[in-house]
Amino acid sequence: MGPEEFRAAGHELIDWIADYRGRIPQLPVQAQVAPGEVAGKLPSHAPEEAEPFSQVLADLDGIVVPGVTQVQHPRHFGWFPSNASLASVLGDLAASGLGSLGITWQSAPALTEVEEVMAEWLRELTALPASWKGVISDSASSACLVAMLAARERATDYSKARGGLQSQSAPLTVYTTAHAHSSVPKAVALAGYGLGNLRFIDVDPVTYAMRPEALAAALAADVAAGLRPAAVVASVGTTGTTAVDPLAQIVPLARRHGAWLHVDAAMAGSALMLPEMRWLVDGVEGADSLAWNPHKWLGTVLDCSLLYVADPDHLIRVMSTSPSYLRSAVDGEVTQYKDWGIPLGRRFRALKLWFHLRLDGAEAIRARLRRDLGNARWLAEQVSSTPGWRVLAPVNLQTVVLRHEPPGAVSGTGAVLDADALNAHTLGWADWVNASGAALVTPSVLDDMWSVRVSVGAEPTERHDVEALWRLLKEAVESS
Amino acid sequence: MGPEEFRAAGHELIDWIADYRGRIPQLPVQAQVAPGEVAGKLPSHAPEEAEPFSQVLADLDGIVVPGVTQVQHPRHFGWFPSNASLASVLGDLAASGLGSLGITWQSAPALTEVEEVMAEWLRELTALPASWKGVISDSASSACLVAMLAARERATDYSKARGGLQSQSAPLTVYTTAHAHSSVPKAVALAGYGLGNLRFIDVDPVTYAMRPEALAAALAADVAAGLRPAAVVASVGTTGTTAVDPLAQIVPLARRHGAWLHVDAAMAGSALMLPEMRWLVDGVEGADSLAWNPHKWLGTVLDCSLLYVADPDHLIRVMSTSPSYLRSAVDGEVTQYKDWGIPLGRRFRALKLWFHLRLDGAEAIRARLRRDLGNARWLAEQVSSTPGWRVLAPVNLQTVVLRHEPPGAVSGTGAVLDADALNAHTLGWADWVNASGAALVTPSVLDDMWSVRVSVGAEPTERHDVEALWRLLKEAVESS
Repeated sequence: MGPEEFRAAGHELIDWIADYRGRIPQLPVQAQVAPGEVAGKLPSHAPEEAEPFSQVLADLDGIVVPGVTQVQHPRHFGWFPSNASLASVLGDLAASGLGSLGITWQSAPALTEVEEVMAEWLRELTALPASWKGVISDSASSACLVAMLAARERATDYSKARGGLQSQSAPLTVYTTAHAHSSVPKAVALAGYGLGNLRFIDVDPVTYAMRPEALAAALAADVAAGLRPAAVVASVGTTGTTAVDPLAQIVPLARRHGAWLHVDAAMAGSALMLPEMRWLVDGVEGADSLAWNPHKWLGTVLDCSLLYVADPDHLIRVMSTSPSYLRSAVDGEVTQYKDWGIPLGRRFRALKLWFHLRLDGAEAIRARLRRDLGNARWLAEQVSSTPGWRVLAPVNLQTVVLRHEPPGAVSGTGAVLDADALNAHTLGWADWVNASGAALVTPSVLDDMWSVRVSVGAEPTERHDVEALWRLLKEAVESS
Repeated sequence: MGPEEFRAAGHELIDWIADYRGRIPQLPVQAQVAPGEVAGKLPSHAPEEAEPFSQVLADLDGIVVPGVTQVQHPRHFGWFPSNASLASVLGDLAASGLGSLGITWQSAPALTEVEEVMAEWLRELTALPASWKGVISDSASSACLVAMLAARERATDYSKARGGLQSQSAPLTVYTTAHAHSSVPKAVALAGYGLGNLRFIDVDPVTYAMRPEALAAALAADVAAGLRPAAVVASVGTTGTTAVDPLAQIVPLARRHGAWLHVDAAMAGSALMLPEMRWLVDGVEGADSLAWNPHKWLGTVLDCSLLYVADPDHLIRVMSTSPSYLRSAVDGEVTQYKDWGIPLGRRFRALKLWFHLRLDGAEAIRARLRRDLGNARWLAEQVSSTPGWRVLAPVNLQTVVLRHEPPGAVSGTGAVLDADALNAHTLGWADWVNASGAALVTPSVLDDMWSVRVSVGAEPTERHDVEALWRLLKEAVESS
């Protein structure tokens, strides 16, 4: 396809996207397709001849749109906000159009330097420590793995250059809570520590936050047993309940044992743009790394995760390679992001952050985040003050974890049966909501019982959408 | 930014990209900026208020374009082809516009199922084994790490669930050659094996391909010493010289020792679209995994790497997580790509493959690949038949590794001095070419001497561009 054909098709696609974004409120939130239905509509073989663009565009409408859950919908309250702001979509288009190759500074100096500046802009906007340096990666999962690898190499004095983790005599241990994101145990397993060496520290029964005294006890017990604490992963805003592990108390414990302290703030990081929310990371100055995802609540289109480290030289020593065909005369003067993570070739992801911040402006983004916090508080108040309904966890951010507990379901003597019946009721009405297409919520398990997470924060979600959701929830428990 | 503002800005950006692509031939290939120059043009702080789109667009021209090396240039012969076909740019724009969230099948069924179909289309187009299943990842580096993790877990019977690699008694070993991509030792180090357990097997002095008899000897020696061979990484098209490790002989050796056989075909994979090039992977049927990058020569815009595995169930067992908030009623019936790699949240990358294959068609892509192979052969013939010039490695694909060896530089008695002088000469003229902006080539070390790689295969590169390069190289050795 040449530039002129691209121009014509590109204009059509821009119009298609603008129209699509405009009509999302009329679409069902949850995809209404059965397993295999989308694949069944595609030919079994690649086309030998070029097809007209009109046909491809028609398949976006006929196959793709009905086949995706509309997370840009104003009534998407599922999982977490996964906003794809249109300003950032333009930035990502510019990156694709440029077709730059991010392997070294030399291959695309602007790709590297705009990324450095964006990491710094966002560091300042979120008031993270001034000496920290950031890098864009694809996900908080990858960032957590990178942190666990950096921790491993620090604890073993760069065993990677010798016998690796296989030569380690005192087994390394890692600490987090059972409320940490699933990517934390995954990273611990992939980094080779073994899940047998991962400790799930007790949480407070009300806040679901890590109990520092339980961490202290676990660290002491392991050290006494001859083990070597290598890392602690603290969650700031857990996925389940947005619980906030208290960094001010956890960080000194990790430092005392020489353990790497990684902060997973994947969703909550956006809130650090608001001065009144910076209590979330009180004590973060002593941490080693922190990851958060602009591709969630902030709204920079997937994939865009920021990993900050206090000691970039250490990270580079863990990750660097220097084959002859990638060397240049300026190597000592420039940042080589290939040595800050796993992939060599990288997209120009900084452009979408640049476009997003410039075309929306920081103040408008803050206003939207405050709107969402207010909407979540409003919903929590309605739920708390309505008989038969309960809010199950502190509303620290924009997520409300709730349950409808009809009379009889939790009372009486048949406790086990009641729990099963209550679980069936919860899953039943949540499914009714989701199947309706009118809104999306996420069932999740809390304290061994099913609950429902309402995650407020889709870019177009206004108060009236949350009000409509609340009416729908009440209808659901009657109708399901 | 709302849909109508996006519409207006989007049309402007599409025109800008079409114009930019049209004027690339007039731009210098290598970025002409000094370290810090791009960053110095950006404000120190993020904007509080929204800026007009015109200002952002002006910065693309004024800051970004001069700040990137033009790998879409017809005279880009550096590193490797990093094509960003405009058809795939449209697909990527559609993905961003949709703003889908790839965490589970449920969050975007089409994201999963189009990816399954694209992996199958490309498997068929490249004639890889019919039972293999593919997944899109960001890079061959990440894919290699995933393969090394899968190998580790197979060799240790899923030690990740217990004490990890720390509990391993017979140290695991990995085998590759010194010509393998730098991501291979990196993956081995990150997976925890330790570089002390990585064996660089001898290569043939003419073809630079792994010597199977040397591999056999290394495997036998390690087993005799009580070590446990866990993986062999074979390169099909090395970065340095496009050397091809002979799978037909290597695969049975790996299997005999129960070692995972991973094939790194990052650049060469595209050539498998051509039946006449399938000798590259003769014997691949017995391999465990293979990665190649559509984002290189094929031309699907970064980032788009395909990882194929023979045993997806094993990969899933290594990578899977199942928190309650990601469970659904259809889990057993559908593919959950989160369990095929490191990140949880994924973009709808399959769309750019879908658009690329449909809007360009397989036959036109094959014709372009054949054009590039022919152009590389033509250049190699010119070089070989010109006194003072040498082709240093077999031209298996689209890369010509060459050197100008002026009389005196390699003759005489002062061999060491001559080598230094020849290296200086090579780096000097390559630098002259690159600084001219008229073309880009990559110096690299082969047999301890600097050489120059000419990697043919940018999408717009025609024969006359290669002819012009050859004239430029001859001019360079006179002028530098």
